[in-house]
Amino acid sequence: MKVVSIVGKSKSGKTTLIERLVPILIRKGLKVAVVKHAKMGFEIDREGKDSYRIFRSGADVVIVSEEKLAFIKRVESDDINQCLELLRGYDLILTEGFSKLRFPKIALDNGNYENVIAVVNELNDEVVERIADLIIKGVMNDRERS
Amino acid sequence: MKVVSIVGKSKSGKTTLIERLVPILIRKGLKVAVVKHAKMGFEIDREGKDSYRIFRSGADVVIVSEEKLAFIKRVESDDINQCLELLRGYDLILTEGFSKLRFPKIALDNGNYENVIAVVNELNDEVVERIADLIIKGVMNDRERS
Repeated sequence: MKVVSIVGKSKSGKTTLIERLVPILIRKGLKVAVVKHAKMGFEIDREGKDSYRIFRSGADVVIVSEEKLAFIKRVESDDINQCLELLRGYDLILTEGFSKLRFPKIALDNGNYENVIAVVNELNDEVVERIADLIIKGVMNDRERS
Repeated sequence: MKVVSIVGKSKSGKTTLIERLVPILIRKGLKVAVVKHAKMGFEIDREGKDSYRIFRSGADVVIVSEEKLAFIKRVESDDINQCLELLRGYDLILTEGFSKLRFPKIALDNGNYENVIAVVNELNDEVVERIADLIIKGVMNDRERS
């Protein structure tokens, strides 16, 4: 499994870059998941909904339909490994943020990050395609090695 | 692992029963998750949010904070087994609905369900405590057997 982190200051365009990379990567046949860091107290569900009431009562919750599944659980830290554990079976994990971890990084600014494989200064189509190629090559190299 | 289904018509009180059972079961030391069935097109996330934009771009998404994790993924059916797969490590899974499956059931009406272990006609404290006891005994028996 290959993990690549998209890093940069707030409002530097991390979500936009991910949003533009994902369709290209999927078109190339990769099964892609994104891990996003959130602040304490983030609320994904809506107050008043049944699933929200059930979570509030103390249980972790899975909501499932014929096309989508949502799993909301309590955790003790924002450790990335528990996320990767859930994401076995994906070809590629992009993380938004997590700039202090060991993973190869695409940086949206000239911040002081370790293991940067590309710096993106302008988010145009050509740049996005080039970043996608770089990621795909990384995934492929990883597969050959393993 | 023990799975118990809470079944009954719409508005029969399934969510309310679950909401009242969960704190009792947790107090008894069980790690509890609830699986809830949802209609096609249910939206857990909110339009405009970054995580929503990322999911819409085609990637499955994990959002993680220091206390909560949400995993939103595409699935091909509402098969309960993919949910149970995610929920390894829980002592007890309550399902809301899924009345056609094989699991033991607590029924909130006199519908025609298989494998009913209790029918709840009135949702008072005493009844809820008794249902909780019944479930706990089931989980314990299961543990002894395995």
